[in-house]
Amino acid sequence: MNEHVEQYKLFELNLEGTQDGNPYEDVAFGARFVSQKSGECVSVNGFYRSDGHYSLRFMPTIDGEWSYETESNDSTLAGHKGVIEVDKASANNHGRVQLASEVLRAEEAKAYGTELPYRFCYDDGTPYQPYGTTCYGWINQSEDVQEQTLETLSKAPFNKIRMCVFPKFYDFNHADPASFAYQGSMESGFDHRRFNEDFFNNLDHRIAQLDELGIEADVILLHPYDKPKWGFSKMSTEDDEFYLAYMARRYSAYKNIWWSLANEYDLMPQKSLEDWRCYARVVMANDPFNHLRSVHNCTHVYDYNEPWCTHCSIQRIDTTRTTEDITQWRAQFSKPVVCDEPGYEGNIYWGWGNLTGQELMRRFWEGAIRGGYVTHGETFIDKGPQIWWAHGGKLHGEAPQRIAFMRKIFEEAPLDAAPLDASLAQDAMWPTSSPLPEGMAANPALEKAMQYWDVPVLRSSTDYQLVYFGWYRPLYREFPLPEGKSYKVDVIDTWNMSITRLPGTYQNSVKVDLNKQYMAVRILKA
Amino acid sequence: MNEHVEQYKLFELNLEGTQDGNPYEDVAFGARFVSQKSGECVSVNGFYRSDGHYSLRFMPTIDGEWSYETESNDSTLAGHKGVIEVDKASANNHGRVQLASEVLRAEEAKAYGTELPYRFCYDDGTPYQPYGTTCYGWINQSEDVQEQTLETLSKAPFNKIRMCVFPKFYDFNHADPASFAYQGSMESGFDHRRFNEDFFNNLDHRIAQLDELGIEADVILLHPYDKPKWGFSKMSTEDDEFYLAYMARRYSAYKNIWWSLANEYDLMPQKSLEDWRCYARVVMANDPFNHLRSVHNCTHVYDYNEPWCTHCSIQRIDTTRTTEDITQWRAQFSKPVVCDEPGYEGNIYWGWGNLTGQELMRRFWEGAIRGGYVTHGETFIDKGPQIWWAHGGKLHGEAPQRIAFMRKIFEEAPLDAAPLDASLAQDAMWPTSSPLPEGMAANPALEKAMQYWDVPVLRSSTDYQLVYFGWYRPLYREFPLPEGKSYKVDVIDTWNMSITRLPGTYQNSVKVDLNKQYMAVRILKA
Repeated sequence: MNEHVEQYKLFELNLEGTQDGNPYEDVAFGARFVSQKSGECVSVNGFYRSDGHYSLRFMPTIDGEWSYETESNDSTLAGHKGVIEVDKASANNHGRVQLASEVLRAEEAKAYGTELPYRFCYDDGTPYQPYGTTCYGWINQSEDVQEQTLETLSKAPFNKIRMCVFPKFYDFNHADPASFAYQGSMESGFDHRRFNEDFFNNLDHRIAQLDELGIEADVILLHPYDKPKWGFSKMSTEDDEFYLAYMARRYSAYKNIWWSLANEYDLMPQKSLEDWRCYARVVMANDPFNHLRSVHNCTHVYDYNEPWCTHCSIQRIDTTRTTEDITQWRAQFSKPVVCDEPGYEGNIYWGWGNLTGQELMRRFWEGAIRGGYVTHGETFIDKGPQIWWAHGGKLHGEAPQRIAFMRKIFEEAPLDAAPLDASLAQDAMWPTSSPLPEGMAANPALEKAMQYWDVPVLRSSTDYQLVYFGWYRPLYREFPLPEGKSYKVDVIDTWNMSITRLPGTYQNSVKVDLNKQYMAVRILKA
Repeated sequence: MNEHVEQYKLFELNLEGTQDGNPYEDVAFGARFVSQKSGECVSVNGFYRSDGHYSLRFMPTIDGEWSYETESNDSTLAGHKGVIEVDKASANNHGRVQLASEVLRAEEAKAYGTELPYRFCYDDGTPYQPYGTTCYGWINQSEDVQEQTLETLSKAPFNKIRMCVFPKFYDFNHADPASFAYQGSMESGFDHRRFNEDFFNNLDHRIAQLDELGIEADVILLHPYDKPKWGFSKMSTEDDEFYLAYMARRYSAYKNIWWSLANEYDLMPQKSLEDWRCYARVVMANDPFNHLRSVHNCTHVYDYNEPWCTHCSIQRIDTTRTTEDITQWRAQFSKPVVCDEPGYEGNIYWGWGNLTGQELMRRFWEGAIRGGYVTHGETFIDKGPQIWWAHGGKLHGEAPQRIAFMRKIFEEAPLDAAPLDASLAQDAMWPTSSPLPEGMAANPALEKAMQYWDVPVLRSSTDYQLVYFGWYRPLYREFPLPEGKSYKVDVIDTWNMSITRLPGTYQNSVKVDLNKQYMAVRILKA
């Protein structure tokens, strides 16, 4: 009987081969998978583990039978044939996260309207909005802390995690990990052509566990926070590429993998922009499953118009305008925008990590309502030995439960709900209130632009409007409503996590009492 | 005996002349004043009041005897001669506010260092930092409200007020004033060539009262918030200029006058940029005392590089980055920057007027520490019939007392204290702490730039440093100190208005506990 594998899940073929020379370098090993149903062919590169063990991983995108045959320059690894039986994905398995524009057929894509370029969905078409968090070094902590991190994640609202492979050396992060990605040691040096199977075995396990939790692993392949005795940020270009190919071969069959070439790429001046483009090509060449790819900046936003980038993974570059800049980044790059560092909730001494929960949540709302995605992080330095952002462990902040609350609201929004560009007065379907004083040269464009000049708005035709007031504290606000329709109105206290439906329905306009910061108003066609 | 006048105070010469025709238009009347002490000559244009009464106002800038002689095309007004005895300014009379760069001699100017272009001072060299407020329509309210406004101002921390001449028609401002600047009526229309002496008599009185309180009257000459039956925003260019000349002739001898050509000039598309430049020339031609001049924008910042502008009077144009942009505006215009609308404390429905006290104060601090000035306004719509920003009356907010607190701190700062440009790592005299992780290509410029990348800093050589944390909430921060000196350290809670001096003195570095929002740290040479 053929081996059964679930669609989008990992099929692993394990073979024994030569141990001569350096098998990591010397042995070319792969297989070609053919779907009996569609005829689709997928070529997969395998990888060496240790002690003569070789593996090859495949993620079937189509159900039904797939046949495979291996090839290798090691004759013991070549010519292995087989057939696997791929069962249709089960209820909670939606496949990879991809660009909605690449997954959806024209008819399905229509539901996204003009939002299509900015959105993700799973392979099966289920919409996906990233609500990520950041635990850079969680896999380099003790077993206990890793387990605790997973336990925390199992109860948190996050569906993506930003995580490094190499350990991080930085404030509050000075410990050497128990296990490194390479064979060797700090004393004798690391062999950049021989990987440490124990390390990767654990990483395999952790990524699989994240997948079980429905969490995308946004794997940060390189980063600048290095220690001279580690030296992983200053390997040769060839060694970088050797490592990247290995990572892609080993992990691309996990459906929940995203590739982040680097954190703060611009703090690694030893790498040129051409290096990053080459690195992207190496990853793509070894990832037949086309996982999402990006790179993350410190002070210079990467040019995400480069075709290898599937989406933006931006750290805010202005200390004041943070997720508000998502408006500009969407216009600039026409791809989904994830603000992967809007600042963190915590009390570390630097401004990137000492926000109140209120301010972080304000940035979340500002970003989401502008059609982007915002990533969480937590940096309390007085709550115990672990700091979530660095080590994982426990969460202490006020933001996570409020992210859960907002996630539901944005997941309920129509797929084509788009941020209103008030400066363009884009939508003639919604009227304006509060006409300009007559002394101002009243013109309709100006009146339109002034209706929502101060607050971001997410809107779907005349059916849906979500307005967020952030730090503003109006006593009330009057919302003009499109003619000839009735509306239900929800007053949302984003901080206290309440949604209050106003009694009855409203025509023409509705006056909503607010009188607090961090309020939102949702207007729905009745 | 000659009439005695105090230096910088108003001397008024009243004469009787013709009532024939339209004396406002037909009669040219002026005088030439000559200082016996310096030989300086000042030509002053007079103005018609009513009923054959003419006045001419002069502000002596030099003590000692001044002689004058009138000239006119009305022979009864011509040839009047006299001598006035100007007494030296008394203790609280510092003269006009002017640009420090225009008042100070080279030796005095040195104290300002590179800050000279961005600063104001009085005629006698006393530094002046504007802490203004906004009461657009206070002189168009009832007598009672006007009196209450003055009473409120007498106890408030403000030393400048932004005020209109023409009434304002806008949300919560729909009443017709009892008195208009022109003769005529809403029913029969206004005569734009005949002024209403009662109206101006009151304005004279109010501006003099402001001067008694030490408050500069930043008079807004034109504005767009008009009502069709008033029509003051749409007068002809010739009528505008006739009005502007009259205002300058009547008010330029008040030492506390500033000229603001318009509020939100860009909401008056009926006026061209050339109109505004002409209007400035008309004001200057009729103001021999060279009062400060600017104009204020809505969405398009005026080009304050135009030579007639003495300073910037900017409304923030971004909803998020407000007074932070003072850094950019200083660089762009090289003149003092007053952010005259950073948003107001209150709860009106628009985002320009529903800030909490905390957020307004944050904007004040952000602006001041960046070397600019920030203006107050208050817009509570549920505290009684008057809204401070529109009508004057009473103040209800939490900001004013905190403005008093901050004013003292900034008035105590060294005159040459300059905002640190972290991106330039401008000051090699202060060391950095927290070196970069070794994996980052450490370079001194980057380390410098990272020391204060997140917070604005005001600094004077190695003697003084003020750092403001705004919405950040670090548990603590370590400040590296210049070598070989001892420092006193003050922890300033800008919201709770406390200054806590840390015990002892510090060398090399000091770690300061903070753990709250809206904190500042002041480091002073011991």
